[in-house]
Amino acid sequence: MLQGHQTWVFPTQPVVVAAAAIGGPFEAQGPLADDFDLLHGDLRVGQDTYEKAESKMLEEACEVAIRKAGLQKQDVQFFLSGDLANQITASSFAARTLAVPYFGLYGACSTSMESLALGSLLMDSQSARYVLCGASSHNAATEKQYRYPTEYGAQRPPTAQWTVTGAGVALLAAAGEGPRVTGATIGRVVDMGISDPYNMGSAMAPAAVDTITAHFRDMGLSGGDYDLIATGDLGRVGHGIAADLLDQHGLGIPPEIFTDCGILIYGPDQPRVMAGGSGCACSATVTFGHILNRMKKGELKKVLIVATGALLSPLSYQQKESIPCIAHAVALEYGR
Amino acid sequence: MLQGHQTWVFPTQPVVVAAAAIGGPFEAQGPLADDFDLLHGDLRVGQDTYEKAESKMLEEACEVAIRKAGLQKQDVQFFLSGDLANQITASSFAARTLAVPYFGLYGACSTSMESLALGSLLMDSQSARYVLCGASSHNAATEKQYRYPTEYGAQRPPTAQWTVTGAGVALLAAAGEGPRVTGATIGRVVDMGISDPYNMGSAMAPAAVDTITAHFRDMGLSGGDYDLIATGDLGRVGHGIAADLLDQHGLGIPPEIFTDCGILIYGPDQPRVMAGGSGCACSATVTFGHILNRMKKGELKKVLIVATGALLSPLSYQQKESIPCIAHAVALEYGR
Repeated sequence: MLQGHQTWVFPTQPVVVAAAAIGGPFEAQGPLADDFDLLHGDLRVGQDTYEKAESKMLEEACEVAIRKAGLQKQDVQFFLSGDLANQITASSFAARTLAVPYFGLYGACSTSMESLALGSLLMDSQSARYVLCGASSHNAATEKQYRYPTEYGAQRPPTAQWTVTGAGVALLAAAGEGPRVTGATIGRVVDMGISDPYNMGSAMAPAAVDTITAHFRDMGLSGGDYDLIATGDLGRVGHGIAADLLDQHGLGIPPEIFTDCGILIYGPDQPRVMAGGSGCACSATVTFGHILNRMKKGELKKVLIVATGALLSPLSYQQKESIPCIAHAVALEYGR
Repeated sequence: MLQGHQTWVFPTQPVVVAAAAIGGPFEAQGPLADDFDLLHGDLRVGQDTYEKAESKMLEEACEVAIRKAGLQKQDVQFFLSGDLANQITASSFAARTLAVPYFGLYGACSTSMESLALGSLLMDSQSARYVLCGASSHNAATEKQYRYPTEYGAQRPPTAQWTVTGAGVALLAAAGEGPRVTGATIGRVVDMGISDPYNMGSAMAPAAVDTITAHFRDMGLSGGDYDLIATGDLGRVGHGIAADLLDQHGLGIPPEIFTDCGILIYGPDQPRVMAGGSGCACSATVTFGHILNRMKKGELKKVLIVATGALLSPLSYQQKESIPCIAHAVALEYGR
């Protein structure tokens, strides 16, 4: 149900009855390793290309979530997913294996919450009994497509971020045990003129702020109403900018509850990540793994995930366009 | 509301209160020229790249539809759109100009109906007051990305199709005058092992048949219940295959009501099109222009549009993957 300009509230509160996070070798070295369901030591995941490896991880995430929920593939009505690969082939090939009706989505790194928002709407409107919402990315596949093959060892500036190798999915049901989706705020495209693909966090920060502001306005909430507000993959540079902008907007978000999935996923002993993690799998694995786990442990009751996406393409960059950005926010609640 | 396995019925029947179709110079020479709102003589549409031309046409389609409905941009809550460009930049840049909350979609040439199906669900669940659903493609931008730059003059086999240059959008409202969306069937990925990117119609035909069969099963309908069933862009080769397969399934679709947007859009005096039109704009412009016009003239009462998509990427083809395909069907009705 529409509330305000761009927010949905879900009266039935669809439940994340199961979720799964799959990661690669670099994620296995990070501080959230224990929150992954499966971690691969091999960046190729036993496949002959990085692209097939990404699709394989997304398939694994779907399988794990379906198994955790005690369901079969054919119980799931719809699969909503997207990724960074040209023509989102990682998702489409996983959808071929899954063989359930499929919505391909593209919101760059905001896809995880685009998927969860739409999936929750499907549930809330009784248009499905079970929905799988997912997203994936692969460091080597993404870097070679957007910038340089990682094998070149090209130098990266301090504002650069490290694309997460992994896949995250959430399985929604009308009832059951698990965090509930209470609402979602759909973002507008915001473009402040930044055109440096090594500085995505700065480009995306204003989009995150635009969506957070809209969410609080539409819902009549303020910063203290959540136990955690996590942006998708602004990294350290973008997170600082977003915090400053939110302060200027006077939203009163306490600094200790405001974090970013791109900061959480890698540790200070992983210097190659520069400003932090990024990629569709960043918010997908951190949310559907780490953050849902914290909710289930009772550490967090109300959470807002604000997944951010940079909607550029290598060609739009070459054609000297700036980077259009977007952020979608989903509110989750657990316990009474 | 879910009916059967993969079909939604929309009790409120969202109304297409306005629609728009924009085309390029080649579409202007075709038999449906009169059904376009705007036809450009210049393939670049006054822009400096084909990619910007595509985005411009999508923006124009949105503007025309909003104007026809007597609305302002800010009346529209959500824009759902996708295209064939890597990272769907045509849609994302149009969304930047439109500045309304945006869902990026990717279903290759099935995007037009993916967008209309989801948009109708947003309306039916009272999650929006007005929604814009769109899709676009550009011949020169697409051919250079998937196959060869058109300027090379590479020889094309008779099974090849001609990517439509254009954009089509539909503006949905809860009430008003216009064709109503009564239901939608969401497709599964079907892959019969075809890997030739010059023979997409054959690859997509089984996906179209899978979705049509599911629609009839879920809705308890048969072929005679529609005045027109139009697939998205199977072209002459794929259309023949789909007709044969449907006959084998015994669905009883009379040949005179079964057609394809890719056959309709170009005439026999346009031999370069080979097997017919294709691209996201094929089903988008033919449906939101020609077919809606025929409905409004009273020539068609009940119509089923089955937009088909080939979910390959140039890279998946190079990596010797076959072509996963999908089709989404939307049912439209006008008059009593």
